[in-house]
Amino acid sequence: MTKFLAEIDVMPKKEILDPQGKAVTGSMKNLGLSEIQNIRIGKHISLEIDAENAEIANEKVEKACTSLLANLIMESYTFTVKAV
Amino acid sequence: MTKFLAEIDVMPKKEILDPQGKAVTGSMKNLGLSEIQNIRIGKHISLEIDAENAEIANEKVEKACTSLLANLIMESYTFTVKAV
Repeated sequence: MTKFLAEIDVMPKKEILDPQGKAVTGSMKNLGLSEIQNIRIGKHISLEIDAENAEIANEKVEKACTSLLANLIMESYTFTVKAV
Repeated sequence: MTKFLAEIDVMPKKEILDPQGKAVTGSMKNLGLSEIQNIRIGKHISLEIDAENAEIANEKVEKACTSLLANLIMESYTFTVKAV
């Protein structure tokens, strides 16, 4: 068994309005950072996983994303897995 | 002016309890994914920024992180900036 570390990003899909990001974009102006635009806010998830090899670790992370971590109707996800 | 894309991760600090991550770690067992451990959940933020060069873009993102996006008492942040 090898220990792997997965880093997952879950973001609202492009075509979906992100009200939290819109609100923070507005706040940037008040901070004098009006050159910052198009903020989108999602989740970053890190986790450890025990698996025989990287391929199995990838499968398990994929299953975790589709069944629990991301709502695939509104969100998309990307992840990386590396041995530690 | 060049357009840069910044990808920011804001995570709860190691020494701080992450109740959301703990709860999700528990749920993994019910999904048959008990080999997944130590889940920590933070924010992933993507934003666009107009700046003369990468150094200035980095400074602005740094300012946005410290003054608005991250609570430095409980959270730490990392980011990458690339031209698009």
